Amino acid sequence: MADVDDLVDGIAAGRRAAVSRAITLVESSRPEHRAEARHLLARLTAPGEPTVRVGISGLPGVGKSTFIEALGGRLTAAGHRVGVLAVDPSSSRTGGSVLGDKTRMPDLAVDQHAFIRPSPSAGTLGGVARATSQAMLVLEAASYDVVLVETVGVGQSEITVAGMVDTFLFLTLARTGDQLQGIKRGILEIADVIAVNKADGEHEAEARVAARELAGALRMVHGKAAWAPPVVTCSGLTGAGVDEVWGEVLAHRDRLGVAGLADRRAHQQLDFAWALVRDELEQRLRRSAPVRAVREQVREQVLRGELPAVEAADRILAAYDEA
Amino acid sequence: MADVDDLVDGIAAGRRAAVSRAITLVESSRPEHRAEARHLLARLTAPGEPTVRVGISGLPGVGKSTFIEALGGRLTAAGHRVGVLAVDPSSSRTGGSVLGDKTRMPDLAVDQHAFIRPSPSAGTLGGVARATSQAMLVLEAASYDVVLVETVGVGQSEITVAGMVDTFLFLTLARTGDQLQGIKRGILEIADVIAVNKADGEHEAEARVAARELAGALRMVHGKAAWAPPVVTCSGLTGAGVDEVWGEVLAHRDRLGVAGLADRRAHQQLDFAWALVRDELEQRLRRSAPVRAVREQVREQVLRGELPAVEAADRILAAYDEA
Repeated sequence: MADVDDLVDGIAAGRRAAVSRAITLVESSRPEHRAEARHLLARLTAPGEPTVRVGISGLPGVGKSTFIEALGGRLTAAGHRVGVLAVDPSSSRTGGSVLGDKTRMPDLAVDQHAFIRPSPSAGTLGGVARATSQAMLVLEAASYDVVLVETVGVGQSEITVAGMVDTFLFLTLARTGDQLQGIKRGILEIADVIAVNKADGEHEAEARVAARELAGALRMVHGKAAWAPPVVTCSGLTGAGVDEVWGEVLAHRDRLGVAGLADRRAHQQLDFAWALVRDELEQRLRRSAPVRAVREQVREQVLRGELPAVEAADRILAAYDEA
Repeated sequence: MADVDDLVDGIAAGRRAAVSRAITLVESSRPEHRAEARHLLARLTAPGEPTVRVGISGLPGVGKSTFIEALGGRLTAAGHRVGVLAVDPSSSRTGGSVLGDKTRMPDLAVDQHAFIRPSPSAGTLGGVARATSQAMLVLEAASYDVVLVETVGVGQSEITVAGMVDTFLFLTLARTGDQLQGIKRGILEIADVIAVNKADGEHEAEARVAARELAGALRMVHGKAAWAPPVVTCSGLTGAGVDEVWGEVLAHRDRLGVAGLADRRAHQQLDFAWALVRDELEQRLRRSAPVRAVREQVREQVLRGELPAVEAADRILAAYDEA
């Protein structure tokens, strides 16, 4: 475990190479690495003050990287140490869209006070979330006091990221006919702050109109009595409004309060533990050779209307229990 | 299996006692009943035409029972046979709010052409959904050509019901400050038709305003190019607008088309099969004695910050694998 001791010291000293190796370790799914990772995590020193953990989401093309580049640069200039992580369970499957890609954040990538790490391509959302959540602890032990977790608006990943951060920021655009699609996917439930990005040049005015309309729609669907997330405009490109977005993030954090934040984090940990358990059970189901042997036949029979769902479920379970 | 033969004949003849006994059978979780139920379901005759399956949801107090009473009466008067089922996984836990309660639908309860069955109180959502989905097949084999499945806007139950019907109707109110709360819970994703209920007397005008505002907000969040669910007003009490609500339900069905409906139902069956498998795995996890032995301690250690989530998950899985 001499290696782990070195890593712990290197992380405490904020050495980038140690941080990088530690994250590689927590991303590994090999049993011996898991044991080492557990040993490492147990020995890390938690920061004295809680860090600021922010999830950032939005559909592809909304300008997440440019926004994070602008925000991260402002934060490091103001004396913060900024970690950028990503959760993109699709990256391993499609080979594309590896979030947190350094080439898309050229200034932040060479910023001494920033640490960018692309999404682990470990496959399942549970696996990616597990790795990202542990990478966050490594960064925090290395005195990164702001951690930004980027994700795409796909499937369950936003809800997973919302479960590991203090504040969830959703970026959207004013331009397209379906600019607010994300909202259909349950964003209303999890967004703490919404920003209409690319509010620059000729698009500034329409971004403001869209933000106002969206704020009105949100007040409508949340109900007049209830709190609704603030909607602001910004431009990752020019930097306009980026400070205001950050101001809303901090305002959301203030509303939580110290006790509220501690409580939120404690319950996030508990939910996350059970999510990891369920993910493991789901993986066992998927990996089960007897289940894989019957699933295609069951699928076809159900779709042809020859096999009722309840019987199909029993057949899958029988195969699972064979293993 | 003489008993099952009798049941099959009785159901085909549309005898209420047989329908009732068959539903009791499919609700049972005892293994010998499960086997009998499977035998029964395999022998039922599917209707020649697909029935009309409608999910009806809305928060408590929105007037679901009164609405179903008004709608059901109109449908039976027009020559339909109407089955009313319910999915309320909370009914067993709280002892209250057993949906589909006959006393809340006095006319429909004595209507020869209607069959009302309260929610099974079988405990888990998966178990309740399994029973309700099979009860629907029993009703359809007994020539009920419209099946209304009532549910409350709680947790996952609406999404489950949306997965077993052709059209999902959401009832809401104009009055309170938070009348549209349901929308926060992902209703936008699943509602095919929305009706502002209790649009009667002095409240009619404000219901119309609310419907118009809501329709505008929905167009906004769905995006201008996309389809948004229609929003109408009605009164279960006076019957005003109830025909229009039904018209929107049928219009949604028409938009699906014959092939679209068949495709939707086939994929619903497949999704439902996997949901039942996952529910069973979740139940095994919950019932596991070693898991129950550690879960409280794990919970407390995680909430006190003494046990990281990843380690907590490993401990729960280790307990599960002991069994």
